[in-house]
Formats: sequence, structure tokens, C-alpha cells
Amino acid sequence: MVNYPNGKKKTTTLKQNNSINRGMKLEDDLNRTNEYYLNHNIAIIHKKPTPIQVVEVNYPKRSYAMITKAFYRTPSTTDYNGVYKGKYLDFEAKETNSKTSFPLSNIHQHQIIHLENVIEHHGSAFLIIRFNYYNETYFVLAYDIIAMYKSNQKSIPYRWFQENCDKMPFSLTPPVDYLKVFDKYFKE
Amino acid sequence: MVNYPNGKKKTTTLKQNNSINRGMKLEDDLNRTNEYYLNHNIAIIHKKPTPIQVVEVNYPKRSYAMITKAFYRTPSTTDYNGVYKGKYLDFEAKETNSKTSFPLSNIHQHQIIHLENVIEHHGSAFLIIRFNYYNETYFVLAYDIIAMYKSNQKSIPYRWFQENCDKMPFSLTPPVDYLKVFDKYFKE
Repeated sequence: MVNYPNGKKKTTTLKQNNSINRGMKLEDDLNRTNEYYLNHNIAIIHKKPTPIQVVEVNYPKRSYAMITKAFYRTPSTTDYNGVYKGKYLDFEAKETNSKTSFPLSNIHQHQIIHLENVIEHHGSAFLIIRFNYYNETYFVLAYDIIAMYKSNQKSIPYRWFQENCDKMPFSLTPPVDYLKVFDKYFKE
Repeated sequence: MVNYPNGKKKTTTLKQNNSINRGMKLEDDLNRTNEYYLNHNIAIIHKKPTPIQVVEVNYPKRSYAMITKAFYRTPSTTDYNGVYKGKYLDFEAKETNSKTSFPLSNIHQHQIIHLENVIEHHGSAFLIIRFNYYNETYFVLAYDIIAMYKSNQKSIPYRWFQENCDKMPFSLTPPVDYLKVFDKYFKE
């Protein structure tokens, strides 16, 4: 058995949850963007907490609870929603390492149904999809993704994004200025 | 030491989190109400998951993660939001066992700030407050709560709710028909 350079064996207990960390970069960028929107009084948009099923809780002290057994649950909605100029907006953010296409299996069926419902109730629904390899982030109407999902398409070619979607402008403040693109699609 | 009738000692490990279960009744009623609104195509309103800080994760099998150490975090927003007739709505739900007043310490400062922000961005913000003793559930404008919170009032007398707020109609389908009252306050 080959040990790691520091002589330690690989352990299954992680200080950080790596499976969650995969794809954290876009999430970080969006968190900072939403913070920017909040601080500059542009919009109130928050990421929903990850749904977790708590099974066991300990009380090391009376005053606080420590969860000792819990599981990640499948989200029933998208991750982000909020209010912008009085309107309800709702979106999901995904990134892929693929150079050629975005796999639709990245999106849960529940999330597709939720986006459909949002559209039906006159909310504004979209997706933010990043191709890590090209470091390109696209603004995609939920309407388009739903149609492709329903036609049982397995993935969306990278070329489709290039030809049909707006690439998000790069900036530091905020990192992903998606409301700039949003305004183009969703008129008041 | 007095043992419990079944001879077992009290344990700090709980299968269900009792501190979370306190006040679950209103939450259950609202979940069923929101499900009713969803199924009857009236509105899309969801409770946000409880924010949890995950510290340690195990992988008993490669395919799934078990959280073995985590803590409850203070929420930075209210618990409920969604879309109704294209409009963004946002509310917090609280219950109290007091017969005489609702303690404002039940509401986090972050939530007050969030409700203020929602109002500023033309969303509709309110609270649903239940007095368990009377089994009465009131619809309260966030505007009123914010004003009292800011004047450093410690609690709101029960009488104030009786005199100034709409009591939610009781029904089984849905259990708390808050959108019926909502329509009265927030015209399109």
C-alpha cells in the first residue's frame, strides 16, 4: 500500500465535504454577486440552504445542539430565488467540466417541475451554467432547458450555448453580473 | 435520582430533535397549506431548509454521504418565500405559548432587516403568528412588526393582535389559508 507523503492513510472522514465542494467556485461567485446586489440595494436574492435530513442530535451542553447523524436530501426546488424590482425571480446554477456539452442529468426532475411552475405563476425563471474548461458562464432561459429536458435530450452541446445564450460579462464587482443580462430578457 | 416510569434514564441523544419539534405544529400546517396552493395551482411557496453548518462527513459507502458532525446556524432570512400572481412574497411564521403577549425576541434581527429589504424592493412581507393557547393564528404586516422592533418594544400584547390583525380562517383544506387574507392587504 502506498502511503501519502505525510505518512497518513486516506481517511473517509473529511473536514470539508468534498462532494459538496465540487462546483463551489460558481456558488462562491454567485454568493458574492448576491451580496453585492444586496449591499448596493439592487435586489434581494439568496441561496437556499442545502436540505439536510437530521436523524440524531446530541446536547454536549444544554445551550446548544450538535447534529451527529444526518443525510443530504434531494432539493425540491432550485437553489436561488428572490425579489428584483418587485418581481419574483428563480434560478438554478450549475457548472460542468465537460468541453463539449452540458449533461441534463445535472438537473433534478423536481427542479424542472419547479421552474415550470414558476413560469406558470409569472415568475422569471432561468439557469446560470458555467463551462469550467472555457471559464465561460451562460445565462439560459428555463423555458429552453425545460423543452430540451422534456424531449429526453441527454445533454446540450457547448455550441448551442455559444450560439443561443448570453455569455455573462466578466467583472470583479460583482463576479457574475447576471441581472444585467436578466434585464434584456425580462422586461418590466 | 428519580427514574422515568419505564426505568430508562434520560438520554441526550434524541431520534428527533425536540428543540426543533417545539413549534412544529404551525410549520406542519403551513407545509400542508403550501402543498395545497401548489397542487391547486394557486401559488408556489416553499419553506427554506434549516441552515446547517456541516463540519464532518463520512462515506459508509462510496455512493452516499453521512453527516456525522454539524450545527444549526442562525437563519439570515425568513423561512418562507415564493411567487403568487407574479409577485414576490416573503414571510416568517412563529408561535408562542404565552397567553398575554408575543415576545419579539422570537424574531432574529437578521430577519427584521431582511423583511425591511423585501419591502424596499416592492415584495410583500408579512408574518404569521400563532397563539397556541387560544389556537388563534394572525396575519401581521411586516411593516408593523418592524416598527415595534425598532422602538425597542420587548413584546406585543395579545390584545394588539385581536384589535389590529386578521385572524386566519380555520379550514382543513388548506389548514391556514393565509393568501385569502393576503389579498385584502396586497392589491395587485
